[in-house]
Amino acid sequence: MPRVGPESLRALIAGVFAAMGAPGDDADTVAEVLVEADLRGVESHGSTRVAGYVSMIRLGLLNPTPKVEILRDLPSIAMLEGDRAFGIVVAKRAMRMAMDKAGRAGIACVTVRNVTHTGMIGFYPMMAARGGLIGLAMNNGPKILPPFGGRTPTLATNPFAAAFPADREDPIVLDMATSVVAGGKLRLAAKKGVPIPLEWALDRHGVPTTDPEEAIFHGFLQWAGGYKGFGIATVVEALSGVLSGGLFGTDVSAMKAFGREPLVTSAFYLAIDPEHFMPRQEFRQRIDRLVRQIKASERAAGVEAVFVAGEIEFRRRAERARDGIPLSDVVYEELRTVARETGVEFHLA
Amino acid sequence: MPRVGPESLRALIAGVFAAMGAPGDDADTVAEVLVEADLRGVESHGSTRVAGYVSMIRLGLLNPTPKVEILRDLPSIAMLEGDRAFGIVVAKRAMRMAMDKAGRAGIACVTVRNVTHTGMIGFYPMMAARGGLIGLAMNNGPKILPPFGGRTPTLATNPFAAAFPADREDPIVLDMATSVVAGGKLRLAAKKGVPIPLEWALDRHGVPTTDPEEAIFHGFLQWAGGYKGFGIATVVEALSGVLSGGLFGTDVSAMKAFGREPLVTSAFYLAIDPEHFMPRQEFRQRIDRLVRQIKASERAAGVEAVFVAGEIEFRRRAERARDGIPLSDVVYEELRTVARETGVEFHLA
Repeated sequence: MPRVGPESLRALIAGVFAAMGAPGDDADTVAEVLVEADLRGVESHGSTRVAGYVSMIRLGLLNPTPKVEILRDLPSIAMLEGDRAFGIVVAKRAMRMAMDKAGRAGIACVTVRNVTHTGMIGFYPMMAARGGLIGLAMNNGPKILPPFGGRTPTLATNPFAAAFPADREDPIVLDMATSVVAGGKLRLAAKKGVPIPLEWALDRHGVPTTDPEEAIFHGFLQWAGGYKGFGIATVVEALSGVLSGGLFGTDVSAMKAFGREPLVTSAFYLAIDPEHFMPRQEFRQRIDRLVRQIKASERAAGVEAVFVAGEIEFRRRAERARDGIPLSDVVYEELRTVARETGVEFHLA
Repeated sequence: MPRVGPESLRALIAGVFAAMGAPGDDADTVAEVLVEADLRGVESHGSTRVAGYVSMIRLGLLNPTPKVEILRDLPSIAMLEGDRAFGIVVAKRAMRMAMDKAGRAGIACVTVRNVTHTGMIGFYPMMAARGGLIGLAMNNGPKILPPFGGRTPTLATNPFAAAFPADREDPIVLDMATSVVAGGKLRLAAKKGVPIPLEWALDRHGVPTTDPEEAIFHGFLQWAGGYKGFGIATVVEALSGVLSGGLFGTDVSAMKAFGREPLVTSAFYLAIDPEHFMPRQEFRQRIDRLVRQIKASERAAGVEAVFVAGEIEFRRRAERARDGIPLSDVVYEELRTVARETGVEFHLA
């Protein structure tokens, strides 16, 4: 498996999307967020998505030169209409707006509607944490999971993310789908040709399956924690799809083949500035203390280490920033192909 | 099992706490929230708690005449210090403050620290939904669960609740512990002398157990969805315990015997006014649509009905408002005892 440096991977991806008409800043942002996912080991949301995004632009499903409209802009809230933009670009803008507003008001939220894939959702709360703020993000998407106990695709895997700034420790970063796993992990398994654990998905009959293709094309993911995961997904749907004025639930098209069918999502970004509650440094030190309490737990039998949310990803990021990002042969070839097709020099080092 | 009407149960409970020195409005509020839990079938947070609250007052663990202090009161945020008050009383006040602020700013949050048990957490978001607002609530509590993979008690079951106002449908109400079940369910099983499912808890060695006493006094609850439930609990801890300036993590005393040991919690209440995003009626109708989409799902084999979050509880509430609340013999006798001890007429009808 070839390992590539993040700089050259970013440059390649940005070059591809710039060549397809995206403004330079937008192309850079897409590359930044995708490569950050690869660095953190969230490969399902990294450069494996490039070929899909390229296909969506070609098919008119993703608008690389959108007119993003600010529908409302009040001191503590805003609403954005995305015009089928790169979800990543609008998500970053929305979180930045939420952070600015929270800096003044203490808390703020921004909704986004009618954008495509927003990439690794944890990226946006991490922006807030880097700025000393608390960030939350959630979004809906193509109907793929049935309600708990049902068998009609109704909601997406509706991910949820949150980040908290620490002082000497890494920030706490939760980034999770409300399904047992993210749909991207099924697609990655299918791409790699490996079976999936029996707990991840159901087949067309509602029976657990190890076949990622069966699960992707005919079956369903399972909810994390059963009805609890479904309940959280419902909350995510209401805050992102319903409150944004965007599409929600069964009104969102199903999307089985990433890049070849419409992918419309809505999202919700929230920021809180702890400075309005206590000195920022005090809050950061309190988060340090929480992290250290968790790390100080005795380990259960057979467990090598207790991890705080996001910790494994920060470790992997340090390792991959040093040693390079391992790309699967499939992704490597996809990148080579889109580079050739868009006239971008294929140089990964 | 005797069935009692909610009015007489409320009057009895309010009478007991008024007799113990609580201001009349506060006693009424505690009775209102406990009986609402009984009505909704959340018995673990209903009148089964009365004897424990009484004991806490007697032991000086719960202050029935607190000086609740408003530490900060800004347009979009507030912080309350609870002086070991009834958590229920301060929680209701905090959510009311968040609702008022959100009505003006669109979004607001209020933290609470140093209160006792806050009762059924879903009550407070439901207040928001009754007012046409979105409500969220979360709180921490006594360390009882280890981090995922650990065996040192570090966090509480850290519940999370959210509610969304509908138009013709019942509101969506999610009310969940981040553990597989709430600790109250273990205590209720112990009180009833019935075994618990093997998935609920671990014994002192970290092995699944069906013995609620072993789990309560020596073992641990399990997290919903494994590391995902632990991740959400961490977010709840950071927003409630850390942001409130209250105790968090291992600094919160363990509490094994409800009513006889300190129970200190911190909480976070958030409200969003959809009117700042779209006409309120439009938002309500969109929630209706989401509810109906979920209800319209085909059922999986062997499943009798697909439920929206909170729906089962609304059904049970209608049934119990009509037929009365079934009280276990243990709870009935506890109520009789505290009524006698506080000189309140024991009249349940």
